Amino acid sequence: MNASEPSKRVVILGAGFGGLACCKKLRKKDLSITVVDRQNHHLFQPLLYQVATAGLSAPDIAQPVRAILARQHNTTVLMQEVTGIDLTARKVLTGEREIPYDYLVIALGVRSGYFGHPHWARFAPGLKSLSDATRLRADLLYCFERAESASDPVEIARLMTIVIIGGGPTGVEIAGACAELARKVLKQSFRHIDTARARIILLEAAPRILGTFSEDLSRYAERKLARKGVAVRTNTPVADISEHRVHLEGEIIEADTIVWSAGVEAPPLTRSLGVKLDRTGRIVVDKDLSVPGHPEVFAIGDIASAVDTGGETVPGLAPAAIQMGRHVASIIAQEAFVPGGDLKPYQGLFRKEFSYLDKGTMATIGRSAAVASTMGLRFRGFIAWILWLFIHLILLVGLRNKLVVLLQWFYAYLRYNPGARIITGVTGGANDPKSSGLSR
Amino acid sequence: MNASEPSKRVVILGAGFGGLACCKKLRKKDLSITVVDRQNHHLFQPLLYQVATAGLSAPDIAQPVRAILARQHNTTVLMQEVTGIDLTARKVLTGEREIPYDYLVIALGVRSGYFGHPHWARFAPGLKSLSDATRLRADLLYCFERAESASDPVEIARLMTIVIIGGGPTGVEIAGACAELARKVLKQSFRHIDTARARIILLEAAPRILGTFSEDLSRYAERKLARKGVAVRTNTPVADISEHRVHLEGEIIEADTIVWSAGVEAPPLTRSLGVKLDRTGRIVVDKDLSVPGHPEVFAIGDIASAVDTGGETVPGLAPAAIQMGRHVASIIAQEAFVPGGDLKPYQGLFRKEFSYLDKGTMATIGRSAAVASTMGLRFRGFIAWILWLFIHLILLVGLRNKLVVLLQWFYAYLRYNPGARIITGVTGGANDPKSSGLSR
Repeated sequence: MNASEPSKRVVILGAGFGGLACCKKLRKKDLSITVVDRQNHHLFQPLLYQVATAGLSAPDIAQPVRAILARQHNTTVLMQEVTGIDLTARKVLTGEREIPYDYLVIALGVRSGYFGHPHWARFAPGLKSLSDATRLRADLLYCFERAESASDPVEIARLMTIVIIGGGPTGVEIAGACAELARKVLKQSFRHIDTARARIILLEAAPRILGTFSEDLSRYAERKLARKGVAVRTNTPVADISEHRVHLEGEIIEADTIVWSAGVEAPPLTRSLGVKLDRTGRIVVDKDLSVPGHPEVFAIGDIASAVDTGGETVPGLAPAAIQMGRHVASIIAQEAFVPGGDLKPYQGLFRKEFSYLDKGTMATIGRSAAVASTMGLRFRGFIAWILWLFIHLILLVGLRNKLVVLLQWFYAYLRYNPGARIITGVTGGANDPKSSGLSR
Repeated sequence: MNASEPSKRVVILGAGFGGLACCKKLRKKDLSITVVDRQNHHLFQPLLYQVATAGLSAPDIAQPVRAILARQHNTTVLMQEVTGIDLTARKVLTGEREIPYDYLVIALGVRSGYFGHPHWARFAPGLKSLSDATRLRADLLYCFERAESASDPVEIARLMTIVIIGGGPTGVEIAGACAELARKVLKQSFRHIDTARARIILLEAAPRILGTFSEDLSRYAERKLARKGVAVRTNTPVADISEHRVHLEGEIIEADTIVWSAGVEAPPLTRSLGVKLDRTGRIVVDKDLSVPGHPEVFAIGDIASAVDTGGETVPGLAPAAIQMGRHVASIIAQEAFVPGGDLKPYQGLFRKEFSYLDKGTMATIGRSAAVASTMGLRFRGFIAWILWLFIHLILLVGLRNKLVVLLQWFYAYLRYNPGARIITGVTGGANDPKSSGLSR
């Protein structure tokens, strides 16, 4: 390119799998890249449920974005919340500043979505951030603590009831882990209550859980969960949620802990863009992953509603986000260096369409049990579980995290004694056990 | 004892080093023991500063009290806050219930004390609980994040100034760790600021830091800290503290992060007991560690103001608390089984006086540098540091914690890259970066 020209400005919103993959692929380019994230860390969401169920510590599954990109000198990281995007003026707005861009990559991910019942969020928090996880962990453990001190049997029953809404992979993983926590891990520790009698209920509106998997794997997961002590209830839509109450048709379940894993939605920001969205607010992108009418703007990962060359909807999975990030990076790398002062990236250039390579999906049901389907093959049980452990360790960012997690898993497997059963008293929940120096 | 008698009720308040040591020593006795703690975990306080400075994860240095005592079947654990003690009716009051006792062991520890300036707590929090530590960690890391985005040089200077008040072991350890965090760990990661230019100021009112150590070790620590980039200011009492401001005589230091490690005090509870207290509210105990006039009540650990047989004041250290706990346990074990319905534990029995075996003290100044004095010997530098690592690993409760901490230390030592640089957005501070699913 013309040496006199300043290098093009690429702004990437979100340091999840998609944003990071895009950024890293551009590391050798003469570009001025800015990564904006409201958190200071990249989070390995697939293991979030293990932090929530006391298997791992929060820092084990997170890596500072700065540390990941420390050696990528064409990139600046900003920990700021994106408050708006001016597509016409080509600027990103945060509370503190305006960030102009030549290319914009929107990779902000999704959050828990409540199908138009936002007030449910208070009573049934989802599991999307480390704070969600440490809070759920504290709530789960604190319920048993209060049950141990309580005398009213009705209250004890409520305290020892955990409802998980949504039978997708996350819901299944949370339910399985909760069951093992109650029936195995905590069993010896209490004197007044029998934690094995805790009720763990997994609610699914559809006829079967793990709907994205094959029928036989769903059935297998249901059997496994039942054996672990989870009451799996399919065809059971939730009518309403109030404090410590899940309302079904003609039935109310009293539960102190209610976890939401039934749906996600895009952050409200997308509604202000004036572009085409799907019903959950995700940005409907062109085949090249750009935003219609804005060839210099791309949306990738969970926040994008994309259809790949094969006509298949691209799923909201880490591998898909990574592939989308790389696809967009290659387009930018190709077009950013076309001579010409005024930026017209789309001018007379053929853009490759995004095609998704499905590497398969998997879900773990708990100790020694998982389901996986990949390249037309289907695995279940111990083999699938080992496969799951292996793949998740590989994908986990950072050698230190790999080692620590491996050690924790190994130890927990031998001793049935996960290491993070700690209430740090930082929950935002109604259960907040507070915390001061007292008794420390 | 007479089989018809119910076993005596021993209530232990606090599951710190003292309370646990006392409880464990009574594990084989026919007693009904209740341990009450407002937290669900035993905290290894000596390593708390490493959680605060991103070296370790919170769960690495804590162990659930229930897990520790799971196999001690004469013991019940209650996670409750003690709201009062009725010494006449021999009852402990918590929000939820009354717990009657035959023997009471008060081991509630201390909290940060502000010499009659309670409002300082808001601006200069101390470091006594895991929540304090995760909050300080988030505040420290978030300051640099905001400095990276800021443009006003005055604001940047304030954001990059950290003041630690109090030059005891904790203050020295925090200061050393902060200096290494800023100068080594974070150095590569920022583009707009040079973290090595952060000002870390350690304020001490006395003529030298580490006053409990010998003069030469103090001097050594001062030199080492200076070399690490800590401005050590002795003979510098603090006149007042306001938001982001430390007021000295004729000088004001603007600092976004202010840490208090200058003093501790007993929880307010002690003032309601109507027994003799020292100036910081600690319970002045007899030579046998019982509360004067209440031979069935003992105070141990930091909350006790005790003088041992040698006439020495017993220091507020873990080894002292453990020794006191065992001493009290042996008295209870001896007296609880004296025949006779009505409890008169002191009647006609000679009680051994507590004598403290000083195993020495140590403080680490940072990577490869520490000071230790034990049995009349004085160590410093690398040897003292290795000694420090070794002893702290040994004392850490739980094999899993030992392994994980060892791994983290080893990795951090090789890579200069501590693992827990994560802002979970759960700070209570003004810096609260909040947190939702957004951008995850």
